[in-house]
Amino acid sequence: MTTPDLDNLEIPQPNGSLMLAWQVKDRHVLVVGGGDVAISRVNHLLQANAKITIIAKDIDPVLHKYNELGLIYHLEERPFKPTDLTMHEHPKSRTKLLAYQQSLAISNTAILDETFISLVERFDKTEKFAMVLTAMNDYPTSLSIYHRCKLLQLNVNLADKPAQCDFYFGSVYRHGSLQLMISTNGKSPRFANRLKTQILIPALVPLDVDNAVACLGHLRRQLKEVVCAGSDADTIKERMKWNKAVTDFYSVEEWCRMDQEKVNELLKLYPKLPTKK
Amino acid sequence: MTTPDLDNLEIPQPNGSLMLAWQVKDRHVLVVGGGDVAISRVNHLLQANAKITIIAKDIDPVLHKYNELGLIYHLEERPFKPTDLTMHEHPKSRTKLLAYQQSLAISNTAILDETFISLVERFDKTEKFAMVLTAMNDYPTSLSIYHRCKLLQLNVNLADKPAQCDFYFGSVYRHGSLQLMISTNGKSPRFANRLKTQILIPALVPLDVDNAVACLGHLRRQLKEVVCAGSDADTIKERMKWNKAVTDFYSVEEWCRMDQEKVNELLKLYPKLPTKK
Repeated sequence: MTTPDLDNLEIPQPNGSLMLAWQVKDRHVLVVGGGDVAISRVNHLLQANAKITIIAKDIDPVLHKYNELGLIYHLEERPFKPTDLTMHEHPKSRTKLLAYQQSLAISNTAILDETFISLVERFDKTEKFAMVLTAMNDYPTSLSIYHRCKLLQLNVNLADKPAQCDFYFGSVYRHGSLQLMISTNGKSPRFANRLKTQILIPALVPLDVDNAVACLGHLRRQLKEVVCAGSDADTIKERMKWNKAVTDFYSVEEWCRMDQEKVNELLKLYPKLPTKK
Repeated sequence: MTTPDLDNLEIPQPNGSLMLAWQVKDRHVLVVGGGDVAISRVNHLLQANAKITIIAKDIDPVLHKYNELGLIYHLEERPFKPTDLTMHEHPKSRTKLLAYQQSLAISNTAILDETFISLVERFDKTEKFAMVLTAMNDYPTSLSIYHRCKLLQLNVNLADKPAQCDFYFGSVYRHGSLQLMISTNGKSPRFANRLKTQILIPALVPLDVDNAVACLGHLRRQLKEVVCAGSDADTIKERMKWNKAVTDFYSVEEWCRMDQEKVNELLKLYPKLPTKK
């Protein structure tokens, strides 16, 4: 890293959001609600392989169909009840965790034993809700779900109530491995959606991004497993440097038209870099 | 909503991420680490107005400079210790919450009283870390931070350790109100970055998106507060319908060239819609 000029640092501009790709694969997510907004939430969650539980008094036929197709982990057409928030937790998990919390709270040196680690991991990955999303017209119930989630330390989003949201959903474009999210930070979601449809997607559609990502994935895998295998710091650095230089040697358009045979030729050059396209 | 054809539903494609705009404004975030990756994390957090705490044995001059400029809430140049994870929490908050959790766990009807609600809100918004980010070369320490975060139910990201991440950072473009995140779901971060730089940004740069967002914000505010005020369901529906139709009447490019005077003329048309541009 070159030493930056400390008197002329470019300070990041505030008042945006922290845009993140959340990992909910195989983790429980609760959707309370069964209408249009709930469908939209479920569609987002299916893209991320979440284990979805839906609870609502009235559930749209689309969600019932998803359930018949095996896409939903658990569905109950009935009013929400507070104990739903811990429905997949083992009855004793939280009590055990609370005891651990209390014993560890005062100590900087307490050792994390195997029993503790396996309990914590099982609870986090397979029992608790990674997030709770409400999409219902009953604000008092929704608000009480929010407070209970906060008590249970669950991440929560109340549709249309930004003050009670740990996170917002944006306008997302998905094409194979590529995902794009666009946001005006709540100022005009409709305009964000039109920017996406009218400006960004047309710029991406002519490109075979999936092919590029597949070729670059092949390059990286072969490099790591065959051409320049090893896990010491120097080897990793060498590999990353060559990979970066080759990635940058071709334009985005060229990678989108690349094929695996050509990638294999490139790999034969290692440690030299290509000089012509 | 038109009834969809249940036998030909378009099922969302799996194996992506859940892309979200996380809200950390005025909320505590802990960064353990003080090098290049930590700087990158802090830059992301500053864009989202987080209250940043940095703890590391060695802290880069850039982060010290940020601290001098008042951008960092708390900075300590020393090794991490486990009690740091709860450093901004009132010593009694967790114990009180644990007691509440235990008493509410078995009950579906327990009432959330005011004392409880204010404790939960204060704890969530002003005491606990909304997320913990480690960016250090010491994996055993990093992993023990991960397990302790999971015990304390804090969201966590270990740089370069995807298995220990509740979320990933993507390649983000920011211009005023507009934010864009692009991800290849971990398959080729470098290519995602090049797609952003070479394809998406050039498509956006000629557009004055900030002006469009400002005009649309003015339109929506005036509509809500003056032209079609009211908070009953019918008024809201009417307002949203007109707002949507007017937003869609002009192209993205036209909104980027719009001015406030023209927006005021549009508002005078209400409830009619514009017929010519």
